[in-house]
Amino acid sequence: MTVKVGVVGYGTIGSRLAHAASLQKDMELTGVADVAPTLTLRALKARGMPYKLYCIDKQKIKSFDDASIPVAGTLDDLLGEVDIVLDAAPGGIGAKNKQLYMKYDLPAIFQGGEKGEVADVFFHGYANYEKGLGKKYLLLTSCNTTGLIRTVDCLDRAFGIDKVAVTIVRRCADPGDTHRGYVDLARVEPVPTHQAVDLMEIMPHVKATGVLVHVPITHGHIISVVATPKRSVTKEQVLKEFSAHPRIQVVRIADGFATNTSLFQFSRFAHRPAADMYEVAVYEETVGLIDHDLVYAIYIPQEAVTIPETIDGIRASLKMQTDRLQAVSLTNKHLGLEPKTPIS
Amino acid sequence: MTVKVGVVGYGTIGSRLAHAASLQKDMELTGVADVAPTLTLRALKARGMPYKLYCIDKQKIKSFDDASIPVAGTLDDLLGEVDIVLDAAPGGIGAKNKQLYMKYDLPAIFQGGEKGEVADVFFHGYANYEKGLGKKYLLLTSCNTTGLIRTVDCLDRAFGIDKVAVTIVRRCADPGDTHRGYVDLARVEPVPTHQAVDLMEIMPHVKATGVLVHVPITHGHIISVVATPKRSVTKEQVLKEFSAHPRIQVVRIADGFATNTSLFQFSRFAHRPAADMYEVAVYEETVGLIDHDLVYAIYIPQEAVTIPETIDGIRASLKMQTDRLQAVSLTNKHLGLEPKTPIS
Amino acid sequence: MTVKVGVVGYGTIGSRLAHAASLQKDMELTGVADVAPTLTLRALKARGMPYKLYCIDKQKIKSFDDASIPVAGTLDDLLGEVDIVLDAAPGGIGAKNKQLYMKYDLPAIFQGGEKGEVADVFFHGYANYEKGLGKKYLLLTSCNTTGLIRTVDCLDRAFGIDKVAVTIVRRCADPGDTHRGYVDLARVEPVPTHQAVDLMEIMPHVKATGVLVHVPITHGHIISVVATPKRSVTKEQVLKEFSAHPRIQVVRIADGFATNTSLFQFSRFAHRPAADMYEVAVYEETVGLIDHDLVYAIYIPQEAVTIPETIDGIRASLKMQTDRLQAVSLTNKHLGLEPKTPIS
Amino acid sequence: MTVKVGVVGYGTIGSRLAHAASLQKDMELTGVADVAPTLTLRALKARGMPYKLYCIDKQKIKSFDDASIPVAGTLDDLLGEVDIVLDAAPGGIGAKNKQLYMKYDLPAIFQGGEKGEVADVFFHGYANYEKGLGKKYLLLTSCNTTGLIRTVDCLDRAFGIDKVAVTIVRRCADPGDTHRGYVDLARVEPVPTHQAVDLMEIMPHVKATGVLVHVPITHGHIISVVATPKRSVTKEQVLKEFSAHPRIQVVRIADGFATNTSLFQFSRFAHRPAADMYEVAVYEETVGLIDHDLVYAIYIPQEAVTIPETIDGIRASLKMQTDRLQAVSLTNKHLGLEPKTPIS
Repeated sequence: MTVKVGVVGYGTIGSRLAHAASLQKDMELTGVADVAPTLTLRALKARGMPYKLYCIDKQKIKSFDDASIPVAGTLDDLLGEVDIVLDAAPGGIGAKNKQLYMKYDLPAIFQGGEKGEVADVFFHGYANYEKGLGKKYLLLTSCNTTGLIRTVDCLDRAFGIDKVAVTIVRRCADPGDTHRGYVDLARVEPVPTHQAVDLMEIMPHVKATGVLVHVPITHGHIISVVATPKRSVTKEQVLKEFSAHPRIQVVRIADGFATNTSLFQFSRFAHRPAADMYEVAVYEETVGLIDHDLVYAIYIPQEAVTIPETIDGIRASLKMQTDRLQAVSLTNKHLGLEPKTPIS
Repeated sequence: MTVKVGVVGYGTIGSRLAHAASLQKDMELTGVADVAPTLTLRALKARGMPYKLYCIDKQKIKSFDDASIPVAGTLDDLLGEVDIVLDAAPGGIGAKNKQLYMKYDLPAIFQGGEKGEVADVFFHGYANYEKGLGKKYLLLTSCNTTGLIRTVDCLDRAFGIDKVAVTIVRRCADPGDTHRGYVDLARVEPVPTHQAVDLMEIMPHVKATGVLVHVPITHGHIISVVATPKRSVTKEQVLKEFSAHPRIQVVRIADGFATNTSLFQFSRFAHRPAADMYEVAVYEETVGLIDHDLVYAIYIPQEAVTIPETIDGIRASLKMQTDRLQAVSLTNKHLGLEPKTPIS
Repeated sequence: MTVKVGVVGYGTIGSRLAHAASLQKDMELTGVADVAPTLTLRALKARGMPYKLYCIDKQKIKSFDDASIPVAGTLDDLLGEVDIVLDAAPGGIGAKNKQLYMKYDLPAIFQGGEKGEVADVFFHGYANYEKGLGKKYLLLTSCNTTGLIRTVDCLDRAFGIDKVAVTIVRRCADPGDTHRGYVDLARVEPVPTHQAVDLMEIMPHVKATGVLVHVPITHGHIISVVATPKRSVTKEQVLKEFSAHPRIQVVRIADGFATNTSLFQFSRFAHRPAADMYEVAVYEETVGLIDHDLVYAIYIPQEAVTIPETIDGIRASLKMQTDRLQAVSLTNKHLGLEPKTPIS
Repeated sequence: MTVKVGVVGYGTIGSRLAHAASLQKDMELTGVADVAPTLTLRALKARGMPYKLYCIDKQKIKSFDDASIPVAGTLDDLLGEVDIVLDAAPGGIGAKNKQLYMKYDLPAIFQGGEKGEVADVFFHGYANYEKGLGKKYLLLTSCNTTGLIRTVDCLDRAFGIDKVAVTIVRRCADPGDTHRGYVDLARVEPVPTHQAVDLMEIMPHVKATGVLVHVPITHGHIISVVATPKRSVTKEQVLKEFSAHPRIQVVRIADGFATNTSLFQFSRFAHRPAADMYEVAVYEETVGLIDHDLVYAIYIPQEAVTIPETIDGIRASLKMQTDRLQAVSLTNKHLGLEPKTPIS
């Protein structure tokens, strides 16, 4: 059986969800919905409209005609056809959209821009897959939290983690954003940052705090982690665990992977679609110990990092797989993350 | 007959030349050569090594082994097999490499980082194709000059251009560059900038000057042009000419194309390989008149803009086509630029 | 007789107007008014409260107490004491404030963020001083227009200027702005930019157009100008005129003045208050000719450039001086601009 | 008795050392030395040459004449007159200059750009003043280390500190730097960063490690600290200690001090010379606890932060004061840091 998936909102996240869903052999992307002929949709047209487009606001259908972008129907048409919705509307709109999904009795997965109350469960494919099983409304963790938890969960399952203190060096805008950039400016936020709080909700047995510094970069966040394991670990043991994880790439500064952009550029040169990267990267030379505490730094590709866990969410919500590892492994396989190819 | 092409230097430009040459149905990419397992080559490996790699420095062959990148032979092996070389070595190295190409009696095309004396002719596919016919050593114009000339040559052939004064708002570093960026800083250069001087060499009947301002951006340059046509023109006539040019995209600010990054992001979302763009863009709303002078602003995608004209250079040097329009049209067709698809 | 001046709004512009007014020997700064204990006012307190502070919103007076910033009275108190108001409220608020100034029958000078209808005349100290004589409400040109006009007016009075086409490389945010920056992004605007339109209003005998590119810098704008003089000029003649102007500094790239920040840093190292600069700078090596057209690039220090012309506005509005040169010269003298000291 | 001080190298650090030395009532700034009429020296001229300038390279004396900057003599002349030298030459040059200082049997203080072997002791005014007593050659800690140690030493003396793990969000270039900026790029370095290693050399009883991320900002670094105290502390106790320290400012995000630039802008608006700030700032809302560990974030004004500790070094090297607190307190008093004025 093939699950029919609809994506509402075809922007930075929605466009990637659509592509990822279309790659899952046990899913079918019925279509995407949006309100206006954005640059993202113009680019979809340049790709030959591989997906059907549904118009959210009937009154604006003429704008698609003007842009010569074919429209397959209305949002209602889309919702009438699908088994599940991936909501990628701007933050806050998802909660409004939920009323519509409820009308169609459709399960839905929301992105980190929405508030907790929109969903039945706060979800992470690797860390709490079981909690999402059969739940109708899932809320994904945000990009930083998703990537951070991948590494903490990886260590926690191997060694047990007691607490983590993180410093998030956060990109302040996506590439092309004209509404929220900073110039020559770093901005700090009160502790604890929401990512630490969210981590504790997903992994309630781990204590966490965090400092967040917004900086003027666009191609991904960098997080430095101070983690206290429950037992002594060596740098080698840590690297071995990270290296084995399908959604973590261990890269070497010595190989040229010293920056956020090195990973973005690698993705471009590798001709990955949209120059995207689903994996987080751990900079090998940043893994160190101080007393028994573990230190490491990771790269979070903000645009694509949550995509695999969202696909996992479909599997959990619809009980396509009840086993965590079987589920994530299928997602990984269809996204090309398993078998894993190290890049450094 | 298929022309065998070798690319020396597999970096920002070389990687794109290789891809473009591989797309030409009347050419064959024999292989690429470089000295070390750079990030670009690691990405080529991630693509499954679609091209053969030749090692420039035999002593460093072990470094490729360490990176599990297969090596097909040495630079000499490559030069022994090809009909022409595209040199994309770092600025100044091309002149040294020329000695080697001469030893193999091979024609070669150099990029804008080299000095004029390396070549027999300073070349632009659209503006002076005929001058390159049968010439052994061609020097391509730099990225800004290449893109600027496309538009000036387009207007010149339609209306006649007497003089141009340009202001180049130049990206100071490529994405990922760690050696030449600026923070919160714009730097001016003495007039006339070399791009104006180069334009006069390619188009000696046009007077030109230019102011250049380096700014802290990475995704392309923006040039504002004040051009004095030989006869009165209207905005509509100008847009009609630009719109008809296969290597120029007329885009509308109103459609979301208000920035350099809008074009970069469009290329990403369109899943163009490496998020590249061969065309320059003219921002429609910047086309205006003051008295009889014409004003407009263009976007130059610095990484890929010179690629089509370099392929044109192969056609000229080897006399594959003696007719200018026939040559550029073939290049365009193989790069997907003809028939043209407007993006805005 | 000493003119009593009040400044409403003590932010980026207001703080500088207050300082400049306090330096004028024939004026007296009665006080400044604002709504909250901003960072700027905390800094005023650190300077020992050299000016009296008036509270715009009585209900918020407690917030000043909490910050230990002494309040001398209310806005009404201030307006009751002064002869003229310099309005430096955020864009659009000035128009509302005008009602209050009218109630007190007070002349007022507004900054470029307000719309034209707020004022009787659009004013520039050097270019149209006479138009401001005795006018009750003056609107200053914006920072780019003010600085640009200084140079165009300078040339126009010396040689006659027929038309100008400018390219404004505009800083997108002030230092510290968290609400309007760009990262790795340049944004273009439709032609003609408002600065060109404004120039034509101030100097109706000159034709003008302009391209504007916002870039991610904070320390000043750079404008490149293509000007068509009415008669042939030489580079030397042009430099001589610029060099003689008290509000224009001719600087040499060869002396280290190659950037926007070089002028900002110079001001810091010179211990100028707030590291400010009233003058625009012309980069000597950018002055050039193409045919009979003149090309040059200037630096506009956005935070302080309009200050002298605003002080000129007081002189005009209150008819303190009826002669243009006598007026600007007095302003210059009190600001340390006359006698002039070249910096390069 | 007044100590005669010479400053060699009048750049970013040297200009500030000269100003600070000139403010010490028990010292006399004999003069400064440099090789060329830099922008910094042109600004000194604009200030009316408050200090005498000595020429390091006699052959280049003409360049000062061309810039109308008066020269008082040669470096030898300066060294013949002073009691101690503050070396602020570019990194690595100090070691060469030392030969000259030895010839004149002069004590000297070097900046963090030099290697450890240049000096007898690695010095920090607050943390190890006693080690510098009577030592001929002192090496100051770098800007980040100096500021970081201020806070760690402050906590250590109050509560005892066992270990610290820091994340340094480092400005990659000074304002105006054209040779080392990054655009849209963050770069990580291997752990432990040198600042952590240096801290352990100055405070050998504290364990330390650190992650360093270079980011595209110019106005100061931000460091997040995870510190493990020897006994339980409260947030209030920590803030009380920081608030009492003359070289630490506790600032509130709620008061508008949310960024690096807020502190820079405050310094500008406060008309501090060169918009400088000697103090580090602790963002109050970033002080938090996780288990028994303490978390906080600080701002390091890279250009001026080491100045007070360098002046302390004069006091130690020449045994002007043998008591640590007496020494730093005198430095503070002359720099306006005692009595302390909170800014938030």
